[in-house]
Amino acid sequence: VSVTYPSGFLAAGVTAGFKPSGLPDLGLLVGDPGTVVAGVFTTNLVSAAPVRLSRARLALGAPRAVVVNSGQANAATGARGDADAETTTASAATALGLDAAEMLQCSTGVIGEPLHLPQLDAALPALVDALSPEGGEDFARAIMTTDTVDKRATAESDGIRVGGCAKGVGMIAPNLATMLVFVTTDAAVAAPDLQRLAAEQLKPRFNSLTVDASTSTNDTVLLFASGASGAPAVAPGSLSWVRLAESVAAVGESLLRQLAADAEGANHVLIVEVEGAEADQDARTIAKAIADSPLVKTAAFGGDPNPGRILQAAGAAGVGFDPASLDVWIGDVQLAEGGVIPPEYFETDALIEKARAQMQVPEIAIRVKVGDGQARSRAMGCDLSYEYVRINGEYTT
Amino acid sequence: VSVTYPSGFLAAGVTAGFKPSGLPDLGLLVGDPGTVVAGVFTTNLVSAAPVRLSRARLALGAPRAVVVNSGQANAATGARGDADAETTTASAATALGLDAAEMLQCSTGVIGEPLHLPQLDAALPALVDALSPEGGEDFARAIMTTDTVDKRATAESDGIRVGGCAKGVGMIAPNLATMLVFVTTDAAVAAPDLQRLAAEQLKPRFNSLTVDASTSTNDTVLLFASGASGAPAVAPGSLSWVRLAESVAAVGESLLRQLAADAEGANHVLIVEVEGAEADQDARTIAKAIADSPLVKTAAFGGDPNPGRILQAAGAAGVGFDPASLDVWIGDVQLAEGGVIPPEYFETDALIEKARAQMQVPEIAIRVKVGDGQARSRAMGCDLSYEYVRINGEYTT
Repeated sequence: VSVTYPSGFLAAGVTAGFKPSGLPDLGLLVGDPGTVVAGVFTTNLVSAAPVRLSRARLALGAPRAVVVNSGQANAATGARGDADAETTTASAATALGLDAAEMLQCSTGVIGEPLHLPQLDAALPALVDALSPEGGEDFARAIMTTDTVDKRATAESDGIRVGGCAKGVGMIAPNLATMLVFVTTDAAVAAPDLQRLAAEQLKPRFNSLTVDASTSTNDTVLLFASGASGAPAVAPGSLSWVRLAESVAAVGESLLRQLAADAEGANHVLIVEVEGAEADQDARTIAKAIADSPLVKTAAFGGDPNPGRILQAAGAAGVGFDPASLDVWIGDVQLAEGGVIPPEYFETDALIEKARAQMQVPEIAIRVKVGDGQARSRAMGCDLSYEYVRINGEYTT
Repeated sequence: VSVTYPSGFLAAGVTAGFKPSGLPDLGLLVGDPGTVVAGVFTTNLVSAAPVRLSRARLALGAPRAVVVNSGQANAATGARGDADAETTTASAATALGLDAAEMLQCSTGVIGEPLHLPQLDAALPALVDALSPEGGEDFARAIMTTDTVDKRATAESDGIRVGGCAKGVGMIAPNLATMLVFVTTDAAVAAPDLQRLAAEQLKPRFNSLTVDASTSTNDTVLLFASGASGAPAVAPGSLSWVRLAESVAAVGESLLRQLAADAEGANHVLIVEVEGAEADQDARTIAKAIADSPLVKTAAFGGDPNPGRILQAAGAAGVGFDPASLDVWIGDVQLAEGGVIPPEYFETDALIEKARAQMQVPEIAIRVKVGDGQARSRAMGCDLSYEYVRINGEYTT
């Protein structure tokens, strides 16, 4: 059910023909009047036209609906791309009887290829006809590119529901840009509070995900609140805020792990926890350096614990720490203490075999302690396999 | 001939038994009395014991010889590693009749595994016996780990010779750490001038190389000057300085391209030139981001021009520029102008086919213009292939 699990939302997904596969490729999500939306967007300078349009409209506060196409990313398309995004949202708004200012757009697909406007216009009536409070699943499928499964999650607490869906398998997959995440709730939340909820519960989570160290041109996370639950407005500092934050976090965490598990060619999710850093940003940088290391990623693919590669990646992260205080664990097996790999790692098979067993799991846990600081962070990645190279290398435009 | 091409150097390489393969794994390079040495070392915080020892001894100015082992990197070995490096250089110095202060050490191989001191002691007499002015080739072979060929280069100008050799195929290959580069000249050069020559002609060159974005724990570049040519001392500002710099640059450039061509699993060298930046560091960061992008690297493997991936990598590099002024070429084919990929790229086959032809060459040239600034930089990388994943993934400790 995904985004239509909370009250106050209609969704739909249809095939417009943007993708050669003939699979659904046009989605629409509409909140009841009064719905507020918060957004988090890619930091890539080469941002797509729909990212620029959505960012600008969110700043004005009116949006309550989003039209999403897969197939073309509408990135690196210049002035024509901006005009096409305007046209698309105007057409969708008209079909719904909304103002264009109420409509956001997300696009995912080939970078550089212009939107197919005639196909869009032809498909809009059927899309609007299909809108339904049970349309969340169709919507989740319409936003997929090379995803092998759709990603959906729900949570409920104190009569308030949260639902969401996401897509994304590489930051660019063959060259299909993007992670897109849509989360909805029927809580009543004021716009600035909703933005805070997105910034606190969703942004750090999805920023911790790295499939191939490649921030896409189209990454977008949108959080919608309809207020349709009938529960009193939720404001920071209250117990209901804590509960709502937990629900949003639960949906975000579930979608995050579904994205990591479906990453291109991935057989294992890598969960890298860094602790003992002096600053949060330091911990984040080290965690991401380890999760992005091609050598750690291929070691995960091969099932080889290889602590030297983890030490190498941490030391080269560009963050200051004392290498003589570096401790490393894979699962619950310690493989470096005070910057030293125990010599018995090379002398007996027992320690290697224990560590190797920790690699034979869907989610490989790497924990690194870099000192006695209070800061910690987590990065989520995946292994680097033949299949990743095949998907991204054998593909030709 | 490599490092013994200039006068005033003896070298040797023998098999001590550090490597299971039984291939040569212990090398020695000795300059005549009066030889000065300059060094450039890894910036990885987790530096190896021989890096710490060599850096400290170079600062005191006495060294004129280096003992190099492959098989064990002597990194992440703690206090024992430091003691082992002291012992190794003391033993080698004694065998040569030198002070320990005159001896440097480089190590490359498995991270964490301690040096095999008994094998070293047993091999030292034969190593010293083998020293010869024709020993450069044996030395170049003894420093190899998973290199498929040894890398050697020479240059001569105005009676002054420059020679060099290098090893390194991944920054860590399976987990064999390191790029090592040794360059010699028979010019007479004062120590600070030699350091300047290394900093200007060798450091930026080898820093531009990226096989897998993984700065090793053991990377070292050493430049030796024996003065044995008999030519007058070479000092900055003179014509002979320019000529010597050109020779050092030529040897460095040749070794650099040999390293890139022999990178793990590589079928293509990527030469990424970035121009029009506001600052050199900006140009460097963008060039390296493109050369490190797994998506650009797999596109190079697959022979797919894929300009969207180059735009994506440039935009996400973390450096400020105007995306509307981004121009991209592959070879001499322009694939983005003013941040826009020409729509005809998606509409006809002609442009794609022209660009694809530019990918079917040993060295793929990617050129990116990010503005009208004066700064430019170059990064050298390679494609990401099944073979890279096999080498680094199928390997188990």
